[in-house]
This record gives sequence, structure tokens and C-alpha cells, in this order.
Amino acid sequence: MLRHRLAACALLAGALALPAFAEEAKTPTPKELLAKSTPAEWRTPDPRNLLVMTLPAGRVLIELASDYTPLHAANLRTLAHEHYFDGLSINRVQDNFVTQWDDPASDSDPVDESKLKPLGSARKTLPPEFTRAIDPKLPWTRLPDGDIYAPEVGFSEGFPAARDPKRGQTWLAHCYGAVGVARDIGAQSGNGSALYAIIGQAPRGLDRNLAVAGRVIEGMERLSALPRGPAPMGFYTDPGQRVPITSVHLAADLPEAERPRVEVLRTDSATFAALIEAKRNRRDAFYTVPAGKIDLCSIGIPVREKK
Amino acid sequence: MLRHRLAACALLAGALALPAFAEEAKTPTPKELLAKSTPAEWRTPDPRNLLVMTLPAGRVLIELASDYTPLHAANLRTLAHEHYFDGLSINRVQDNFVTQWDDPASDSDPVDESKLKPLGSARKTLPPEFTRAIDPKLPWTRLPDGDIYAPEVGFSEGFPAARDPKRGQTWLAHCYGAVGVARDIGAQSGNGSALYAIIGQAPRGLDRNLAVAGRVIEGMERLSALPRGPAPMGFYTDPGQRVPITSVHLAADLPEAERPRVEVLRTDSATFAALIEAKRNRRDAFYTVPAGKIDLCSIGIPVREKK
Repeated sequence: MLRHRLAACALLAGALALPAFAEEAKTPTPKELLAKSTPAEWRTPDPRNLLVMTLPAGRVLIELASDYTPLHAANLRTLAHEHYFDGLSINRVQDNFVTQWDDPASDSDPVDESKLKPLGSARKTLPPEFTRAIDPKLPWTRLPDGDIYAPEVGFSEGFPAARDPKRGQTWLAHCYGAVGVARDIGAQSGNGSALYAIIGQAPRGLDRNLAVAGRVIEGMERLSALPRGPAPMGFYTDPGQRVPITSVHLAADLPEAERPRVEVLRTDSATFAALIEAKRNRRDAFYTVPAGKIDLCSIGIPVREKK
Repeated sequence: MLRHRLAACALLAGALALPAFAEEAKTPTPKELLAKSTPAEWRTPDPRNLLVMTLPAGRVLIELASDYTPLHAANLRTLAHEHYFDGLSINRVQDNFVTQWDDPASDSDPVDESKLKPLGSARKTLPPEFTRAIDPKLPWTRLPDGDIYAPEVGFSEGFPAARDPKRGQTWLAHCYGAVGVARDIGAQSGNGSALYAIIGQAPRGLDRNLAVAGRVIEGMERLSALPRGPAPMGFYTDPGQRVPITSVHLAADLPEAERPRVEVLRTDSATFAALIEAKRNRRDAFYTVPAGKIDLCSIGIPVREKK
């Protein structure tokens, strides 16, 4: 009586196209597809674009989108280099929306500016970088199934992204795991000292209104499974509920032996295309109706430990 | 220096169209819209369609979709009435996918059938109910922005749903909070004794392949913020990690004084339409580019304590 275990297997299918029974599957499994991938299809994130956040529960890796939000990436490098985030905390977790970390002193109302941690040599404000001009030199793997929010969606340099060719604009999408820059009402008021990660249904209405500075590539569950805050918008009310940030280092600032050894599947690789196609059309016995479609934010990007 | 708090306010906007500054907002806030709602726009869930799940952390309310999956609703009423779920547990939490509860004895491999909790007078298998015929008598509030998975999407009786008029079919969508029926490889193998709730980006590829039996209308964070399981597919490995289910009662089986006193905004009400429109087009100062669109699974349905 394998019903439940099988149901579980079949359910996983939804997550990354893993059939319930490999032997009955006509759609290759992710495992099978990844086993056939070539070393050249994997990339090692540039240590200058990799933030290593250490929480009491473990490590969270964030890859910075240096070609999409370069000024924000630069400011985040500075903040990490100068240990700005060390000792700050996660102060807000709102169900089906965001986990946010920043200086808890900034969340009081009114804010006592004398209590704020100085930003050091980081810039206090930045140009918006909510969109950028389409550059044919940047890789673009377009998805075939369209999108209700943007004329085109796909992947670029490992990030789910959208495009409007008529306007010549492209931008990163607020998918699960996206790391965005909180800001004040002014479009130029963000600087990276307050960041949020998307932990629910993609709030794509934020696209083009906030800078997506990067994406969580490891340890997402350390942000998504935290207790939701009881106050409006998910703020913690008791300072004891806050999750302390041990440190946020730029991988490039770490001795080479201490840098995370991870590889990410290239989103312009044949194996990634095959993974997407396998997920679009499930042809194993469990599925009575393959969707034939996939939305941008439902596609996971494989990450593995580097050998 | 209100930057972070304001950023947080502005961010919430993504969740349910709450502007950062009510006084500057041109888009009405949900609070303003709800304040103008009439009593007739709210409905009290039928106690025969309301499951009250009690976990150590508190209550989770699930409304059954009796017009979409009537046989599954009937079986779930029987299982609850006969205390099938009491003493079982949440055994699987897979990040960005599902939280699943069932008989933990069914998750071993191989399963020792003698250890399984009997289903009592509930049916062992059920017809699929993955879709149903479109019935003009059922309310249908169509969304204007389309969908990549289905010809039409919208709301029916409080549930996010999809339609294919050419095939004459309609079905409930696997949005955040949807409660589905895990099953074996056979389409008729589900019975409701193993259920899952969606806790991440909507896995719409499951639509029409599994029965959506209901939707969490309260207490979602008690399912979504649980620790993710370390085993493949998010299964807990240590029985001590499992979250015990104190009880699952049908509200109709409870004395009237003990029934949850909640009301849900009707999804065919003018106020719900106004909430959707406010979320589609944010016109407060924070937003530089209103999306002009909204996807089915990004719309929350207000629930309130009954006065």
C-alpha cells in the first residue's frame, strides 16, 4: 500500500518535474537530465557577486545581479565589506510576501536617527535601477508561454527576467527568492541597507517599481520558514523574535578556502532548456493532463556543490 | 528618517494594495474599501463545508469546495466526523511547494498496512473530480488579465478557478492556500486521508491532475512557516519533527457556540471587484509603474471575525 508515499512522489513532480516512477516515465527526470549535463553548462558565481549571509540556522547565499542593478550591487559590496549587516536582524516576515532584514532601529516610529547604524562609505541613495536598457550582449533565454505582466519573459545570467522590446527595457522579476531593495517613497531612496526576499506567490506588481538586487541561490528555507510577525505587515513586535544576522560577507572578501563552493546551472544551457521542457509537458503515468505551459516564477534553477 | 518603515509600508502594497501614505494615495486602500462594504457582501461559510484543524500552534480553517469536489467534500466530512485525522500529523513540508498531512505510517517504504489507521466508513477511492462541467448557476467572476495556463480565470464561490469554455470544463486552481488531495498513480486513488496545502509559487501544472478539495481561509501561517523537512520532497526524517494534529473537526459537528465565527468577502461582490482593481492599478506616490494587471493567485480574499 504505497499510496501516500507515491502521492508524495507524484506531488514533487510539481516542484521540478520529477515523475513518480522513473521506470514508467516518458518525461526524463531532473536527475536524469542533470546527470547528462556537461561541466561547461555550470558556472561558478563570481565571488564579487556572492553574498554569504550567516544566520544562527545556517548559511544563505545571495547572488547579486551586477548587470541589472550594478550600482546596488556595488553598494551592497561596500556594506558587506564594512560589516554593515553583522549584528542586524530579520525584523519582518509577512506570510506569502516577504522576509525583510535591516537595522531594527529603523523600524521604530518615529526613528531615532542617533540610534541608526552608520552606512559607512556606502551611498545613502542610489538611482532607481528598476529597469535597464536591453543589451544584445546579455544572454536571453525566452520562455515560450508568455506572461500576463510583460511582453516577454525568460532568463538572463541566472535570473528570471522580463522584457519590453518596444520600450527597449528589461528588468528582473519578483519571483520566489528574489532579493529586492526596500526604499522610501522616493524612487531614489533605496541603498541596500534594507533588503527583502520574496517568500510567496510572485508579487509581480512590484516589478519595475523596486530594484531587484539579487536572488537567493541557497538556504531559501532559512528565510521562508521563519515565524510570521504578529504586527501589521509581519513585523516582529518583541525584539526577542528578531532573527539575528551573524554576518553578511562578500565571498570575495573571504579567504579562498572559506568561500562557498557552489555551481549554478547556466540558464542559457541545453540542459536548462530540457528541464523547462520536461516541466512544461509531464508525460509520466501520474499526469492525466500535461499543462503544456510553465510560468516564469515556477522554474527552479539547479545549484550544486562544486566537486 | 522614515525610510525603512515607509519602505515596509510601501512593500505591503504588493500584498494587498495598501498604499504607503493614505493621504497621498489615489488608489483606495483595502481598509477603505472594506470599510464601505455592506453586510450582504460577506458570507458565513456553511459549517458543513468548514474544517477546523487544531494544531499545537493554533487553528487552521479550511473551507471545502463542495460544488467543485463534492465527493471529496463528503469523504472529508466523514473522515472528520469519525476523528480520522485526530492524532495524525504533518509529515512533509517542502519549500516553495507543499505542506502535507496524513497517516505517518503511510509514509514508510514499504508500508506496513497493519499499522495504518482505518478509514472507517469513508470511501477508499473516489472518482477524480479534477474538473467539472461549467454550470451557469455557479457564480463566476472573471479576471480581465488572462492566464498562461487556462483560457479563463476568475473566482467562483470564494475559490480561485479556471475555465475552458470550449471543453465546457472548470476547475479550481492550485494557488497559495489551496488544499489538494494527494493520491497514488491512479486518478481514482485519492480519498482525502492525505492532504496538502500549497505554500509557494502556485504549481498550476497540478491543475486538472489532482482534486482541489478546499482552501485555507485562516491560519495559513501555521502551515507555511513550519520547518522544511530534510529528506527528499520535504519529508521529516525524525518522528519528533512531525507536527501533531490535535484534531480536525467539521464545524457542523461542533456545538454552535464552539464554531468559528468568521465571514468571507463574497468573490462576486462589488467590494471584491474594487479590491482587485485597486491592486491592478496602484496609483499612489510609491508606484512609478502600475502593473495594470493581476494574476489569479496574487489576489487575497478578505476574511474577518463575525461580529
